[in-house]
Amino acid sequence: MTYRAPVKDMIFTMQELAGLQQLTESIPEFADYGVETAQAVLEECAKLNEDVIAPLNFEGDKNPSYWKDGQVFTTPGFKEAFKQFAAGGWQGLQHPTDFGGQGLPKTIGAACGEMINSANMSFALCPLLTDGAIEALLTAGSDEQKAVYLPKLIDGSWTGTMNLTEPQAGSDLALVRTRAEPQPDGTYKIFGTKIFITYGEHDMAENIVHLVLARVAGAPEGVKGISLFLVPKFLVNADGSLGARNDAHCVSIEHKMGIKASPTAVLQFGDHGGAIGTLIGQENRGLEYMFIMMNAARFGVGVQGIAIADRAYQKAVQYARDRVQSRPVDGSVAGSAAIIHHPDVRRMLMTMRSLTEGCRAMSLVAAAAYDAAHHHPDADTRKQNQTFYEFMVPLVKGYSTEMSLEVTSLGVQVHGGMGFIEETGAAQYYRDAKILTIYEGTTAIQANDLVGRKTLRDGAQMAKAVAAQIEGTEALLAKRDSAAARAMLKQLASARKAFIESAEFIAGSGKGNPNAAFAGSVPYLMLAGNLVAGWQLARALIVAEDKLAAGEDVAFMQAKIATARFYAEHILPRALAQRDAIVEGAESVTALALEAF
Amino acid sequence: MTYRAPVKDMIFTMQELAGLQQLTESIPEFADYGVETAQAVLEECAKLNEDVIAPLNFEGDKNPSYWKDGQVFTTPGFKEAFKQFAAGGWQGLQHPTDFGGQGLPKTIGAACGEMINSANMSFALCPLLTDGAIEALLTAGSDEQKAVYLPKLIDGSWTGTMNLTEPQAGSDLALVRTRAEPQPDGTYKIFGTKIFITYGEHDMAENIVHLVLARVAGAPEGVKGISLFLVPKFLVNADGSLGARNDAHCVSIEHKMGIKASPTAVLQFGDHGGAIGTLIGQENRGLEYMFIMMNAARFGVGVQGIAIADRAYQKAVQYARDRVQSRPVDGSVAGSAAIIHHPDVRRMLMTMRSLTEGCRAMSLVAAAAYDAAHHHPDADTRKQNQTFYEFMVPLVKGYSTEMSLEVTSLGVQVHGGMGFIEETGAAQYYRDAKILTIYEGTTAIQANDLVGRKTLRDGAQMAKAVAAQIEGTEALLAKRDSAAARAMLKQLASARKAFIESAEFIAGSGKGNPNAAFAGSVPYLMLAGNLVAGWQLARALIVAEDKLAAGEDVAFMQAKIATARFYAEHILPRALAQRDAIVEGAESVTALALEAF
Repeated sequence: MTYRAPVKDMIFTMQELAGLQQLTESIPEFADYGVETAQAVLEECAKLNEDVIAPLNFEGDKNPSYWKDGQVFTTPGFKEAFKQFAAGGWQGLQHPTDFGGQGLPKTIGAACGEMINSANMSFALCPLLTDGAIEALLTAGSDEQKAVYLPKLIDGSWTGTMNLTEPQAGSDLALVRTRAEPQPDGTYKIFGTKIFITYGEHDMAENIVHLVLARVAGAPEGVKGISLFLVPKFLVNADGSLGARNDAHCVSIEHKMGIKASPTAVLQFGDHGGAIGTLIGQENRGLEYMFIMMNAARFGVGVQGIAIADRAYQKAVQYARDRVQSRPVDGSVAGSAAIIHHPDVRRMLMTMRSLTEGCRAMSLVAAAAYDAAHHHPDADTRKQNQTFYEFMVPLVKGYSTEMSLEVTSLGVQVHGGMGFIEETGAAQYYRDAKILTIYEGTTAIQANDLVGRKTLRDGAQMAKAVAAQIEGTEALLAKRDSAAARAMLKQLASARKAFIESAEFIAGSGKGNPNAAFAGSVPYLMLAGNLVAGWQLARALIVAEDKLAAGEDVAFMQAKIATARFYAEHILPRALAQRDAIVEGAESVTALALEAF
Repeated sequence: MTYRAPVKDMIFTMQELAGLQQLTESIPEFADYGVETAQAVLEECAKLNEDVIAPLNFEGDKNPSYWKDGQVFTTPGFKEAFKQFAAGGWQGLQHPTDFGGQGLPKTIGAACGEMINSANMSFALCPLLTDGAIEALLTAGSDEQKAVYLPKLIDGSWTGTMNLTEPQAGSDLALVRTRAEPQPDGTYKIFGTKIFITYGEHDMAENIVHLVLARVAGAPEGVKGISLFLVPKFLVNADGSLGARNDAHCVSIEHKMGIKASPTAVLQFGDHGGAIGTLIGQENRGLEYMFIMMNAARFGVGVQGIAIADRAYQKAVQYARDRVQSRPVDGSVAGSAAIIHHPDVRRMLMTMRSLTEGCRAMSLVAAAAYDAAHHHPDADTRKQNQTFYEFMVPLVKGYSTEMSLEVTSLGVQVHGGMGFIEETGAAQYYRDAKILTIYEGTTAIQANDLVGRKTLRDGAQMAKAVAAQIEGTEALLAKRDSAAARAMLKQLASARKAFIESAEFIAGSGKGNPNAAFAGSVPYLMLAGNLVAGWQLARALIVAEDKLAAGEDVAFMQAKIATARFYAEHILPRALAQRDAIVEGAESVTALALEAF
């Protein structure tokens, strides 16, 4: 077994923290998708990922995708696995039944997303990007575009891509130069170079649907003049059959540190007369639509962080149980023992475990808010959940991916020298994870979003509302007298205060001293993520203590309490350091003269 | 220019913090090796490393060493570069003039070590291991061994290795099984397998001198029955010429995540009748001698952390100056600007810079203590410095290497998507650095040393003595009224108190609850390293403020103050989180049931 899906922890989290049952009962279209359905879906999903997709992960690293004469050949086995994935209906899990999807809540979809990314992050990127393309078409596509493309994307016959980046335009999309020339028949001809296009070319599907940001001649400068186009690899005939090869060609793929099986393409549009595209939605609103894809993708990338962290954790636990080395300091074993008996190995494993569970809880709670925001019958509930969800997206993306760097590094460390040897496999997670803090918006971009749109704009009102909810949890903890609850209360309250002080500092600096507000943006993001993940584990601790008292699932509940307490005592205190960096350290960030670096 | 040696910062640190001038004036044999000599040596060293060795670093990653039919072929250019290195006398820099060395203080040697490791860590490992072999022979070798081997090792004709690890014996050397059979002529025949042998086979020198841990039949169990043997690749005739090929063969090299140019050998001793070795020192004292090599090597690996951090920093600064992307939030530049104008990029660069400078200062202060411990005419001064140096070794090794993971990760992050592309070069530092927290004793092994031998054994006396010295620096800061001094005073005092509480908790737990003492061992190491590096920057701040007031080297002194203040406000506060983890979180480290992982 190379990977075992944490179905039990996912169900516990969905049920007890994300409130899946109540959520689905309150939303008519989700009436059948409660915990029982979740359990069945997760078990089925686990099988596919454990048995079919996970075993291809190491292979993908050893035999990455390669480019030859404009074509990209994926790792042996990927094509067949993708067929099985598509045949099982997994691409359409969260998408509307109107177009062949399963219409399940994101809360369940997010857990399935974690599994496939734990199994094989390189493989999972193809469906992740396709999800983004589907979302964008659902939001802004014409009826014709929807009718032609959505069923094929949803059934996995075709896949989708996001074409944003150009050599000079990374985080700064205002610099996009790819141009679109309107044609008499209503189509556009697209000319330009796009880089870093995940699965921009491959052999796993019949067609690839590129969603491309470009400028129409005469459009306004900057981001207000960017439009979104649908540019298929093969043109599609009126009857849905494939037509001529479009003028969109992969001229190379990148040689990367990780996710090597996932082809990262340089795409050349229009070198042979112009790639034919159709406008999505209205001209000059491309960035707005792209943000829909990006927000879905950002959440998805956060889940990737959780996923790879869990995989690294599982591998490290296995090694720590097997590897015999040195006597335990407490004399509990005579002679050399499995290294899991050594306190520092335990500390590393607990750090990995508690960060992973904390972020999983945060992401599933956010997913439930998304479901309520999009499907709840009550407008106020929708709005409230939407605001909360938007606050959570940068935390899920930024914090979960940053924590995955820490967790995968510890994963190598637990393996000692063997961790550095590629055949062991732990190093791959470390290499793969590093892309997560970069793509779909770097951690700094997430932090700018959190500071700019989600703290400065409302004067930290949402931040304070979250803090108030956390105080509610503190009040529940205060009624308990267990050592775990006391430890959690102390650290949660301390972290919450540090967060409030930081949010107030940022809100207060905003206009007068933007450098000071943004100097602490990443520490603020990390503090907020740490706090919210810890809060979810505090809620888990309360549930687990009650169930334990009722004699329910004793070992699981004890483990949940121990994990939450570890998080409280070892991870939450980082908030103190972050607070100082934000509130006291703003000036020193930009104090060094530029020429002195 | 791929690398520029930080000669100026090194000289400032040696002179103002490590007290090189006073040190060398107080030691007759070092009388000529003051700051002036240091400057000349460092400039010469910089040339070789910048011009010859650094350009081979990326090449080594692309075209690593490879094994064929028992031979190892190094990256093209390595052999010639090693010749230049040897011809310049660099291998003998710190070694006695009696055997052809230069006899320079370690304080200068450490700075040169940083340069070569910044230039090319894979390359630098060969001289680093050779240094270890030289140290062991100097300490425990017979006169004959010294006469035959030292001149050749010191002039770079031959290189050395350390053969400790076996498949079942990593951190736990008690499990070593390689055996040595005494022969009638006084030699021994060696039989066994050693793994992870750095430069265990290569084509850069005429001979390789393996220092091998093995057991003589009938020796006591465990570490008290291990002896150290000298096993050359080619036997050496009485006249010093090379004789027959010895029965020590490289059967493969590892496929590693980083330091790919450095061959990591599996060595098979005695498969064809027995490898001929001679005993070093006395039987069963091998571990003691090996620790001499290891302590030198541990310090050296700490310097590797500083070195690779500096290289990653320099590359990130270059990219941040060149890459244009987005408008600065403070409106200081109209339109898109170089990303060095963005506060979070500055925060990342300052984190990298301040951690690197802090650890450099810590390592050079430790090196000066080593020099005084080994060469000062006064016995009390020697003893005092030896105790201090021994306390510092785990900090230099553990903290500097852990910080190098953070710095090299930020280095990739500053590059955004380009950082993940291997051609950029930033990813190599990230991959290379990960070995540093593992080899020559993992961070946990360093932390065990700090807790066990250096805190529990003396009831935290040395820890408190260091803290008392830090209080002295605080008193000096308290007399100043600059914002930088005030910020430093506040955070230094706070971190020092956190350290004392942690040391007392550990000393108090020791015998009664060893799990509790060791549960916080790595956080304690990180806290101590953070504090001591911050303390050195506090001392630097005081010097820099005085020189600035005197109008001396204004830009440099301003930069030093800004860097120290950043460290105070952004790095020192981490001590608070570490204190909580150590003092309050000991129990939760081992609370989860073994079967629940």
